[in-house]
Amino acid sequence: MKTEQIVLAQRPQGMPDDYTFHFEDVEVQEPQEGQVKLKALYISVDPYMRGRMSDSDSYVQPFELNEPIHGHIVAQVTQSKSTHLSEGDVVVGILPWRKEMTASEDEVRKVPQLDVPEYLNLSVLGMPGQTAYHGLLKIGQPQQGETVVVSAASGAVGSVVGQIAKLKGARVVGIAGGPKKTHFLTEELGFDAAVDYKAEDFAEQLEAAVPQGIDVYYENVGGTVADEVFNHLNTFARIPVCGSISNYNDTEIDYGPRIQPILIKNQALMKGFVVHNYQDDFANAAQDLAKWVKNGDIQVRTSVEEGFDKVPAAFKNLFTGDNFGKQVVKVAERD
Amino acid sequence: MKTEQIVLAQRPQGMPDDYTFHFEDVEVQEPQEGQVKLKALYISVDPYMRGRMSDSDSYVQPFELNEPIHGHIVAQVTQSKSTHLSEGDVVVGILPWRKEMTASEDEVRKVPQLDVPEYLNLSVLGMPGQTAYHGLLKIGQPQQGETVVVSAASGAVGSVVGQIAKLKGARVVGIAGGPKKTHFLTEELGFDAAVDYKAEDFAEQLEAAVPQGIDVYYENVGGTVADEVFNHLNTFARIPVCGSISNYNDTEIDYGPRIQPILIKNQALMKGFVVHNYQDDFANAAQDLAKWVKNGDIQVRTSVEEGFDKVPAAFKNLFTGDNFGKQVVKVAERD
Repeated sequence: MKTEQIVLAQRPQGMPDDYTFHFEDVEVQEPQEGQVKLKALYISVDPYMRGRMSDSDSYVQPFELNEPIHGHIVAQVTQSKSTHLSEGDVVVGILPWRKEMTASEDEVRKVPQLDVPEYLNLSVLGMPGQTAYHGLLKIGQPQQGETVVVSAASGAVGSVVGQIAKLKGARVVGIAGGPKKTHFLTEELGFDAAVDYKAEDFAEQLEAAVPQGIDVYYENVGGTVADEVFNHLNTFARIPVCGSISNYNDTEIDYGPRIQPILIKNQALMKGFVVHNYQDDFANAAQDLAKWVKNGDIQVRTSVEEGFDKVPAAFKNLFTGDNFGKQVVKVAERD
Repeated sequence: MKTEQIVLAQRPQGMPDDYTFHFEDVEVQEPQEGQVKLKALYISVDPYMRGRMSDSDSYVQPFELNEPIHGHIVAQVTQSKSTHLSEGDVVVGILPWRKEMTASEDEVRKVPQLDVPEYLNLSVLGMPGQTAYHGLLKIGQPQQGETVVVSAASGAVGSVVGQIAKLKGARVVGIAGGPKKTHFLTEELGFDAAVDYKAEDFAEQLEAAVPQGIDVYYENVGGTVADEVFNHLNTFARIPVCGSISNYNDTEIDYGPRIQPILIKNQALMKGFVVHNYQDDFANAAQDLAKWVKNGDIQVRTSVEEGFDKVPAAFKNLFTGDNFGKQVVKVAERD
């Protein structure tokens, strides 16, 4: 039995292009003891994957050339030789970009029945939601009445960060690109203000949006946007550093004002983190997040592309600034 | 009764110069109820004072023009109208640069009798020692067998940081300028290695000195020295940001590689701090520090200039890189 897969054909220099990915046919192995056969339902594309496409020293292992890209996938069990997974179960795991595949029962986690669409396991209940939850609550620790600013605010992580911060009683300001996104933040997600980093008067917009300064800055972008934010930090500000998407396609070192004088002046804390290190608390977080989604306290915007062939385009779209909310690609219907 | 004082005559642009300070005579007030008359024994000059000489937004109040500079001074009570301070007591406080002065009993703290020279209340038992102690132990949290790097390592703060880190079982590497200072660190203070930031092969020296990477970097200098250190951080590195002396005379923003990608890659923590916020724990720390000094676990190098007229030169000397250990100026003998 053959299926289709997408391999890393060439490591991109800067932005991924037509030479980065290659489609090819591959045999699906029969499941052995402790394995399941799966069909992909939804494939997640995420900015962090760009780092794995380079072979430079990074906090994650680089992808192998001519091997399939791996990422978060929601899949359905079509055949089981596992003792705890059954045909028909829906699972999530870091799996190869294939339409069908065989995986060990240890590589996937059965998705809890939470009365929410399955692809939410790739966003608010999955890695992006967990990233928002732990970075904001464990490092940012927003308090009632404080001001929380989040960049890439309309993205899969940022939109959840802002909504959790609202739940905690903070004034929430989102930074996003273009009026469509900023409007979405204030009109649909209930942010107190939204600032357009592409606008000429970005600095003035930001200053006006944070009259009491910034207590928590949830960092997703880095670069000149962050430099501007740092001008408004309050004493004891906390900065969870989740991402620096402005740098992911850099081929040279990105220069900006050095941060030490700012951290001293504000007695501020900056901490980089990888969500994986909070995995012991993922189950608790998923309960909270599902409850908030069902209550309507957290709304999730998902861009769903249709068809396995759309995966490369959906990935590239992450870096052009045109994406809106969590990007997933629907590969098959659930049986 | 007249005495002499040093006022801020002009805010320096960049390095302080001959126009920055002015000596003048002033009347010493008679002490009122709750006040004491003091004579200065030792005046401390510290890099942070440069920030207060500017009127730009800083974490401390700027000094007033044509008013005396204030800083840490060890003084002796010559006349008392206080209920808890007596003639002859030795005190420390933030006081004006004057030979004699009147102060409220609340502005000064009686120095404990700890069998160590009085000027140590301006260094290892005073602000620099407290700064080393709290920044290293509360933020850096060095563990047995970890590698701790400290910049400005032969200075009043850095030398204590390194010696406390040794006491905690860490491998300690100091960064300092010139062979005289690096030799002092390894031969007299017991650092495991010392690296000369003025050497052409600074980067190679540093790499060789940290074969297992860096777990704690106690930041005193910022700039290109810090950039080089950041190349060797280990996962979960901690960076107490105490000072950024390379920036204190800057008139323009200092640019360097942005830090966000480094913090994410290493899940590293950076935290600026001001020692004042740990004051509830100063007494405990002083006990520890005095014990370590008396045991010989902490050695303190002090540069003592003689004479009130040497205060401006001693201050300027902080920024030229020629100073060695804590700088104090002896103004008078204790009675």
